[in-house]
Amino acid sequence: MKPFENLSELLADDLNAVNTLITERMTSKHAPRIPEVSAHLVQAGGKRLRPLLTLASARMCGYDGPFHVHLAATVEFIHTATLLHDDVVDESDMRRGRRTANLLWDNKSSILVGDYLFARSFQLMVETGSLRVLDILANASATIAEGEVLQLTTAQDTNTTEDVYFQVIRGKTAALFAAATEVGGVIASAPENVVAALNTYGDALGVSFQIVDDLLDYGGAGEALGKNIGDDFRERKLTLPVIKAIAKANEDERAFWDRTIAKGNQQDGDLEHAIELLQAHGTLEETRDAAISWGNKARSALDVLPQSRIRDLLGELADFVVNRAV
Amino acid sequence: MKPFENLSELLADDLNAVNTLITERMTSKHAPRIPEVSAHLVQAGGKRLRPLLTLASARMCGYDGPFHVHLAATVEFIHTATLLHDDVVDESDMRRGRRTANLLWDNKSSILVGDYLFARSFQLMVETGSLRVLDILANASATIAEGEVLQLTTAQDTNTTEDVYFQVIRGKTAALFAAATEVGGVIASAPENVVAALNTYGDALGVSFQIVDDLLDYGGAGEALGKNIGDDFRERKLTLPVIKAIAKANEDERAFWDRTIAKGNQQDGDLEHAIELLQAHGTLEETRDAAISWGNKARSALDVLPQSRIRDLLGELADFVVNRAV
Repeated sequence: MKPFENLSELLADDLNAVNTLITERMTSKHAPRIPEVSAHLVQAGGKRLRPLLTLASARMCGYDGPFHVHLAATVEFIHTATLLHDDVVDESDMRRGRRTANLLWDNKSSILVGDYLFARSFQLMVETGSLRVLDILANASATIAEGEVLQLTTAQDTNTTEDVYFQVIRGKTAALFAAATEVGGVIASAPENVVAALNTYGDALGVSFQIVDDLLDYGGAGEALGKNIGDDFRERKLTLPVIKAIAKANEDERAFWDRTIAKGNQQDGDLEHAIELLQAHGTLEETRDAAISWGNKARSALDVLPQSRIRDLLGELADFVVNRAV
Repeated sequence: MKPFENLSELLADDLNAVNTLITERMTSKHAPRIPEVSAHLVQAGGKRLRPLLTLASARMCGYDGPFHVHLAATVEFIHTATLLHDDVVDESDMRRGRRTANLLWDNKSSILVGDYLFARSFQLMVETGSLRVLDILANASATIAEGEVLQLTTAQDTNTTEDVYFQVIRGKTAALFAAATEVGGVIASAPENVVAALNTYGDALGVSFQIVDDLLDYGGAGEALGKNIGDDFRERKLTLPVIKAIAKANEDERAFWDRTIAKGNQQDGDLEHAIELLQAHGTLEETRDAAISWGNKARSALDVLPQSRIRDLLGELADFVVNRAV
C-alpha cells in the first residue's frame, strides 16, 4: 500500500472529522450556489493530502485536542479556494476528472465562491484561538497569491531563470504544504526545533511534489509513459525541464523555443520535438535529480523527531512523491 | 464643508499614517504586477470612507495605541480586493473615473491581486494581536462573499423580495461598514454597549448608503438630475425601487419588467419608461424614506456615546449620506 493510503488509514477518524467539518462549513444560509459549487470540487475525490499533513504533524507531536481538525479543514478550504481561482485564471475545463466549476457554472461563481471559502477558512483558524497559527496561515496566503501573480507575469517569458521558477513553485505549492505541517506542530505546542523541522519538511515536500508534476507533464524521466502530457507546453509555462534546456540551447533550438513558447506559434510535432530536446540535453534527468534532492531534504528534516509510525510514513511519503517521476 | 471632509481634516495625521501603511504593504518582493494593479485602484482617489470610520470610532472611544491604523488599512485592503473581484464579475470598464484594472491588465491579474490584498489585510489584522478583531473581520469577509454570491444568483430574477435585497446589501456593503466601526471600538477596549452601538451605526450607515446608491441610479427622488443613471437597469439588477414597483405592477407593467429585466431585451426609451413607472407608483420616494429611516437609526445609535466632535460628525455623516438622494 502507498504511504499516503497508510496515513489515511491510520488517521481515518480524524480524517472523517475533517470531512464532516468541511461539509458543515461550506454551507451558506442564504446562497445555495455556494455549497453547490464547493461540493462539486470538495467532494470530487480530492486526495486530502494537505489536511492529512496537518493531522499527521499534530498527532506525531502528541496533540490530543480538537483543533487539528479545524486546521486541516482550513488548509483544504484555502486549497479549494485557490483551485477555483486557478481554473478561472488558466481557463481550465477539467479538474480531478470532472468538468471545472467555471465551465459548469461560470467564472463569476468560481471567483466569489473561492472568496467565500477563503473567508470560511479564516473563520476556522480564528476558532483555534492561536495567533501564531493565524500568523503562519496569513503569511502563507500572501505567499500563495504572490507566487500565482509571479507565474502569470513570467508565463511565456523564455528568459525565466531557475530562481524565478523556484519562487513561483514555493508560492503556488510549497507555501501551503509548509504551513500545513508547521501549524500541526504549533497547535501541539511542539518544541521550536520540531516546528522548524515540520516547516522544512512541508516546504521541501511541496517543492519536490511540484517539480515532479512539472516533469511528468513531459512524460517523466523514466520509461513510464505519462498520460495527459504536454499541458504545460501548450500553455507555454516555463517549467524546470524547459528552463534548463533553454539555457543549453544552440541557435536553432533557441528559435524553436522562441516560436513555440514565447510567440505561442505551435504546430503538430512540436511537443515531440520539445521532448527530444529535453532528452538530448538530459534536462529530464537533471529535473528528476532536483526532485530527489528536495525529497531527501524533506525526509531528513524529520530526523529531529523521535521514531514513530507517523514519522516513518511521512518519510516514505517524501520518497513516494519523488518516485512517481522515476 | 461636508462632514466627511471635516472628519478627514480632524483625523488627517491618522489618515496619512494609513496611506503610508497601505503603500508599504501593497508592495511585493517578487511580483511587480501587484503594486502596479493595487496602486491603480488604491491611489485613484478613493474616498477612504471605510478606514475613516475605523479611525473615527477608535479615537472617539479614546484609543491612543498604534493599531487603529492597521485596522483602517485592513478595511481598505478588503474593500479594494472586493472591488477588483467585483469589476471582473460585473465586467465593468470604469471605476472612480478611470478604466478598470481588468481592462488595463486582465481578469487574471485582478483576481490574483485581489487575493493578494485580501491575504495582506489578514496579515495586518494578525499584527494587532486581537482575536476578537480577527473574529469580527473573518465573519464580515464571509458575509461579504455570501452577499456577492446571492446578488449573482438573484440577478435578473423579478421575484426577488425586499428581504433578499436587504440580505444582499447587508453583505456586499453594510458588513464591512459595521466591521469597520466595530473594530475601532474593540481595539479601544470600549464598553460592550458602545461596541454594539458602533456595529449598529456602521450597519445602518452601510444599508442607507447602498439604498441611496441604488436610488441615485434611477436619478434619485428629488429634482437633481443624476449622472450615469441606468447602470443597474442595464445590468438587470433588482434594487429596491424596482422591487417595490414590480410588487405594484399591473399586467402590462409586469410584462415590461419581465422583458427588460428578466429577459434582458431592452430598447431605446425603456429606461425612461422604467423611471416613469417608479414615479407613478411612488417607489422612488418610498426608497428615499427607507434610506432616511436607516440613516436615523445610524444617528441615534450614537446616543450611548458621550458628546464629542467626532460623534457629532459621524451623526452628520449619516444625514449627509441620505441627503445625497433628496
